[in-house]
Amino acid sequence: MDEYKIRFISLGGIVGVTKNMYVYELYKNDALQDILIVDCGIGFPQEKELGVDFVIPDVTYLLDKVDKIRAILLSHGHEDHIGGLPYHYEKLGSPPMFTSKLTKAFIENKFKEFGAPPNVTLVDYGKTYTFGGFQVEFIPVTHSIPDPMHILLKTPLGIIYHGPDFKLDLTPPFGVPPDFYRITKAGKDGVLCLLSDSLGSEREGLTLSEKIVGQTFEDEMRKTKGKFIITTFSSNISRIRQCVEAAIKFNRKIVFLGRSMRENTRLAHEIGYLPIPDSLTAEEADVSHLPPNKVCLIVAGSQGQYDSALSKLAHKRNKNIKIRPGDKVIFSSDPIPGNENEVYALIEELSVQGADVKYSDIQDQLHASGHGNQEDLKLLVRFTDPKYFIPIGGTIRHQSQYQKLVTELGYKKEQMFLLNEGESVWFTHKDAKVGETIESKNIYVDAYGVGDVGNVVLRDRKTISSEGMVVCVLILDTQMNLVTRPKILSRGFIYEKMEEGLLENAIRVVETTLKPRGGEIRDILNIKRETGVHLEDFFFKERGRRPLIVVDVVQV
Amino acid sequence: MDEYKIRFISLGGIVGVTKNMYVYELYKNDALQDILIVDCGIGFPQEKELGVDFVIPDVTYLLDKVDKIRAILLSHGHEDHIGGLPYHYEKLGSPPMFTSKLTKAFIENKFKEFGAPPNVTLVDYGKTYTFGGFQVEFIPVTHSIPDPMHILLKTPLGIIYHGPDFKLDLTPPFGVPPDFYRITKAGKDGVLCLLSDSLGSEREGLTLSEKIVGQTFEDEMRKTKGKFIITTFSSNISRIRQCVEAAIKFNRKIVFLGRSMRENTRLAHEIGYLPIPDSLTAEEADVSHLPPNKVCLIVAGSQGQYDSALSKLAHKRNKNIKIRPGDKVIFSSDPIPGNENEVYALIEELSVQGADVKYSDIQDQLHASGHGNQEDLKLLVRFTDPKYFIPIGGTIRHQSQYQKLVTELGYKKEQMFLLNEGESVWFTHKDAKVGETIESKNIYVDAYGVGDVGNVVLRDRKTISSEGMVVCVLILDTQMNLVTRPKILSRGFIYEKMEEGLLENAIRVVETTLKPRGGEIRDILNIKRETGVHLEDFFFKERGRRPLIVVDVVQV
Repeated sequence: MDEYKIRFISLGGIVGVTKNMYVYELYKNDALQDILIVDCGIGFPQEKELGVDFVIPDVTYLLDKVDKIRAILLSHGHEDHIGGLPYHYEKLGSPPMFTSKLTKAFIENKFKEFGAPPNVTLVDYGKTYTFGGFQVEFIPVTHSIPDPMHILLKTPLGIIYHGPDFKLDLTPPFGVPPDFYRITKAGKDGVLCLLSDSLGSEREGLTLSEKIVGQTFEDEMRKTKGKFIITTFSSNISRIRQCVEAAIKFNRKIVFLGRSMRENTRLAHEIGYLPIPDSLTAEEADVSHLPPNKVCLIVAGSQGQYDSALSKLAHKRNKNIKIRPGDKVIFSSDPIPGNENEVYALIEELSVQGADVKYSDIQDQLHASGHGNQEDLKLLVRFTDPKYFIPIGGTIRHQSQYQKLVTELGYKKEQMFLLNEGESVWFTHKDAKVGETIESKNIYVDAYGVGDVGNVVLRDRKTISSEGMVVCVLILDTQMNLVTRPKILSRGFIYEKMEEGLLENAIRVVETTLKPRGGEIRDILNIKRETGVHLEDFFFKERGRRPLIVVDVVQV
Repeated sequence: MDEYKIRFISLGGIVGVTKNMYVYELYKNDALQDILIVDCGIGFPQEKELGVDFVIPDVTYLLDKVDKIRAILLSHGHEDHIGGLPYHYEKLGSPPMFTSKLTKAFIENKFKEFGAPPNVTLVDYGKTYTFGGFQVEFIPVTHSIPDPMHILLKTPLGIIYHGPDFKLDLTPPFGVPPDFYRITKAGKDGVLCLLSDSLGSEREGLTLSEKIVGQTFEDEMRKTKGKFIITTFSSNISRIRQCVEAAIKFNRKIVFLGRSMRENTRLAHEIGYLPIPDSLTAEEADVSHLPPNKVCLIVAGSQGQYDSALSKLAHKRNKNIKIRPGDKVIFSSDPIPGNENEVYALIEELSVQGADVKYSDIQDQLHASGHGNQEDLKLLVRFTDPKYFIPIGGTIRHQSQYQKLVTELGYKKEQMFLLNEGESVWFTHKDAKVGETIESKNIYVDAYGVGDVGNVVLRDRKTISSEGMVVCVLILDTQMNLVTRPKILSRGFIYEKMEEGLLENAIRVVETTLKPRGGEIRDILNIKRETGVHLEDFFFKERGRRPLIVVDVVQV
């Protein structure tokens, strides 16, 4: 009889919440047969690396096994699940991608920017797909974006229930509730391992329905005499749709502000997920001609990001729109840990200008988490009744809280795997065991280049067009010591003639960075990276901008 | 093609929470084929009728259709679902009864008191039972008593999901969690109508797990230096078991006080649901010889019932056991509306004697409701996805709150039937409509007889043995006027020679009751009932006792 084994590997998403990428390998008689990949997202480093925009998973491990990759399955359209695709897709052999409707639209749009042709199949929830020795079904669930899915991998060893970001929303304002029958049927058929979202494992009860927020929007809009302004994640199309529906009710014209907001709402509109009557569509420039109580602004920048549309509004840097007393600003999102200062600074600024600012510290029901609380998580366990557990999508703290919950449900510690990034788990007919750790590192993607992947010309162009560019040339000897002072040039960033002091200080920053350090061997790549990081930090501190920074080394 | 119709009739439980009894009739080409009965409980009148202990359903409607009754299905072992059986079983043709393990034990014990032989089948949860044109499956759920079930009636028109008293307890301390797969499978197969418990429809969130209470017991027991005393419903075997388990942990001897508590725990012990080591079993008389910190009393009377075991303790009427400072009394139940005064009076009395009394107004997690809150109810709706709804087991207020919930889930008013007692609903292939109202009345069962049903000799004997008896003889003329003063005799109630004033006052009460009322026609039955009620009221007010009262009329 053939002997099957399955190996699960996380290339991200296990410890850092974001940068989700999971690999399933099927072995027959010790020979690797098929690989399935689930998700390929970008991540946000927990300790913010200076000047780093985001990280992407390290796929080095997969590069010599590309012929075994049968498909990439995408669970939903959030950046931390699909944002890494353009960087890795070709290297992984351009395998077919399978996902749901909105996710497909987001992915195809993303590939447009990068110029590569996508191969994305829209899945049918009733259907079973065969990928080598894996049979796969997709189950609709609910989350803070339309069309999220859980994925059943039917294997010779039993069902693996891959359950990323979800909550059990019984009244989703848009789309269908979770398919409870098919979830519990998996449990009935025999789940070998449940991989479950664990981010809400610290919060009691059942997560609020997204619908609650829509009711709050209506109530608040009714009371608002000035402009109605909300800010939320631009991917949360359900929430945006609820705000749009309230605006339609009160006959307010709808203006989207911010690049990601305009982009995502345009895509959602194109696939029919965000209907807006033409009569209520307006542009930024129209706002000053409209009575304030006929305006609804839906604005990107809820995390207080510098230079976001909301930040520009708050800092009077939007030429067309001014905040006035009587305006209401609703933060329909909680600050992601680490962003609190920026968010509170924005609230402060908006309040100074007379806006009535509502945020979740002072009012409930402005935001509903997309992640299941303890009871959602426990219900999924009872539904699927698995033999083993792997909490995903949370930090170590969430993982161990998840373990506590599952222990309360009567499971044993041996049934749970709290993994670190790169750790793998072997499943056999007999048992499941932690396997080898796959070496992986964070790959930084930022304004001055991508660690060691591909080309981001378009991205650079966009950055230059909005932020300008700084070039730093270093002349080094073979011991990596500076031969002359660093040379710094800029275009589209500052008016150099007026800013000699700034450039002189920047040069000093570079010199300090490159001071010889006793005995340490430094390579050119590291020197470039360090110089870039320090310059980015310096310019951001001095001018609050992030120009594209290019560091070049000439060795003599 | 044959045309099928189904009629649902509630003979109780629709408006008054208790006295649950439901009838399902299957018609083929307009001819009645088969009747299934679900539950047959006693009820507690909402406006307390003086002197009435409880009411039972009126089964008059069924009496000429007894040959069509295929079975009585009992959902769980609470009195308001099985307590009416002994009064009606023979009249209904002694049909086979089907139920779960603990319920079977309770029913068989109940019939022992009445002397009739029961015919109770223990159901198998995996099996389908055929009753004429009905096919029936039983699904285990969770409630405040072990072994509660939901019942699927598979009919030619679709599945009727009969879902009485339940909550979705993911961590039941005893027994299994609800069978989510089979519940959602009913939804997948097509539920025509969901009949759902509605009592928790006013409470937000998901109901607390029964398990929480066990943890509280342990925490409280650890801190208690004196006797540990809890009071709860004697049918809540899961909770009692949790208290027993805590007592075992702390090596306290367990004493059950109160008739119903001793009886129910004995039955649960017999079927293996309440294991207690012999070394920790003790009797009331042993308590005074034991160190207080080695005693755990589990006591009936949580509703403040006069003459309950707890009331006797509080009023120093228990010869063997005294309340002392250091003792802890835990009310592990909420007062049923209407009982608040009695409960608070007890708390007062216990506190005066130095006990540390914990009750849910001052501390959480002493009690978990057995009825699903809003989210439990909504989950059941999503699981079963029915075409029609009939809320059961609540008052009108709960029904209409349930309607609101279901409306939030996107259902229309036309899909819901808010019924009054005796109202019926006709289901056809086309639709569902409210049908005829079946005339029914409350049948009172109380200390001086049963309205118009059967014989309760045993009951009377028990009452007389504990409360005594009062006989009132009325001599009336043909116009129903008193010919002489009423004659009142008593035995085992008061020492008549010392209480002439009391008896004289009782006679006056009867005379007032029977004063001629202009034009009103009165019959003997009514005169007996009124006299009985007024006497009961009088004696209870004067002496706090409820002797068996027999009223006899002699016409001259």
